[in-house]
Amino acid sequence: MANDPIGNTRWAIAEGYIAAWSHGPAPEFTSHETACILNTSDREAHVTITIYFSDRDPAGPYKITVPARRTKHVRFNDLKDPAPIPHGTDYASVIESDVPIVVQHTRLDSRQAENALITTIAYPAK
Amino acid sequence: MANDPIGNTRWAIAEGYIAAWSHGPAPEFTSHETACILNTSDREAHVTITIYFSDRDPAGPYKITVPARRTKHVRFNDLKDPAPIPHGTDYASVIESDVPIVVQHTRLDSRQAENALITTIAYPAK
Amino acid sequence: MANDPIGNTRWAIAEGYIAAWSHGPAPEFTSHETACILNTSDREAHVTITIYFSDRDPAGPYKITVPARRTKHVRFNDLKDPAPIPHGTDYASVIESDVPIVVQHTRLDSRQAENALITTIAYPAK
Amino acid sequence: MANDPIGNTRWAIAEGYIAAWSHGPAPEFTSHETACILNTSDREAHVTITIYFSDRDPAGPYKITVPARRTKHVRFNDLKDPAPIPHGTDYASVIESDVPIVVQHTRLDSRQAENALITTIAYPAK
Repeated sequence: MANDPIGNTRWAIAEGYIAAWSHGPAPEFTSHETACILNTSDREAHVTITIYFSDRDPAGPYKITVPARRTKHVRFNDLKDPAPIPHGTDYASVIESDVPIVVQHTRLDSRQAENALITTIAYPAK
Repeated sequence: MANDPIGNTRWAIAEGYIAAWSHGPAPEFTSHETACILNTSDREAHVTITIYFSDRDPAGPYKITVPARRTKHVRFNDLKDPAPIPHGTDYASVIESDVPIVVQHTRLDSRQAENALITTIAYPAK
Repeated sequence: MANDPIGNTRWAIAEGYIAAWSHGPAPEFTSHETACILNTSDREAHVTITIYFSDRDPAGPYKITVPARRTKHVRFNDLKDPAPIPHGTDYASVIESDVPIVVQHTRLDSRQAENALITTIAYPAK
Repeated sequence: MANDPIGNTRWAIAEGYIAAWSHGPAPEFTSHETACILNTSDREAHVTITIYFSDRDPAGPYKITVPARRTKHVRFNDLKDPAPIPHGTDYASVIESDVPIVVQHTRLDSRQAENALITTIAYPAK
């Protein structure tokens, strides 16, 4: 197993859009965007997410804790504090952590009967 | 929130193809390619996009402004000046900025009843 | 052909989720997650995969051998020793090798009549 | 427009699989894998592709020319010399060039009525 933690402490996801409606049984088939976070270190990761919009100031920080040697798949739909992210709106996000983490971005779009799925590694900032 | 700007000043997307037709209500379900641009800096980003083709000289520069601490999701379909990008044609793009930005590429293909979606981080050039 | 091996010796995939059910003929249309591994070197690659969960200690190492100058597309569904990976559960993975390899992540989700496919390059750790 | 060429001279795509059958009108909806290559330089790029398999020696080199300041979207289905790539078979590829290029990987899977699309930036080798 890994001896030293993998990843970066700052990541960016330039794409963000929570589809405004869904088909199929919740929560599996609810339209959502996810930041999959992996913390391979031996220390708890204190993660903050900042949300950027096209037409107003950034929102956040949203605070998340990922325990040591755990993964957490954070649905942007579930971020409530300081404010929920509006649906049907373009956004982007910056994820920062006090220990190295790895971030991957996924979207499930279930606006139609057959789902569409996308994923990409996030951008690891220097 | 981020203290120093995240990203690179040159990016490339080797894939480009705007499907020639669409299904479903516009504009959400119109087939499109998007460059999602995030500007975390405190300065307005002056962005230029150059489009490369398989059989003729590059087109552009297409000029876009992304305000400080904002994201802009640019649909290639909407680029009109100096000339619209033809549909059903292979292309690629280079995105350059005077401040660091992050670029992610997304395509919605709605040629069929059920959409297909793809995304990837763009290539950050040195 | 390549003279020196391409890649890194540590990779991470922060996203992992094997859909709990499938449509269509097996094995092509069975819902699965895959780590596509490329070994361009002249030496056999001894690869270990460690699986991280949200709520318990990591599992592994799962051991895989990729012969010299070969690719192996490893389905996480097929990992059995020391224990199968549960379906319908969030996980993440770290892939380590004694020679440089390249890792790409793919998921086929066939829970519905029409499949969804995703892919991304994995995160190459330093 | 770009003053110096963007990219790397060696790239790898660990995933490769040409679906064995297709739905819909050819060639747009024929199942295919594509390497989208962008050459922003002022010199013609002489590109070679080597294909790696799971159970036999690599095939190639497949030779492709991408003119200066052009993109070429190469369908692996169309590679014929020295031998076509078998369908329904796992493979991986290494793309090498004498000038810097950018490579992105895309697959259209039209085995079902509704297509699935995937894309990712390829792995830029040092």
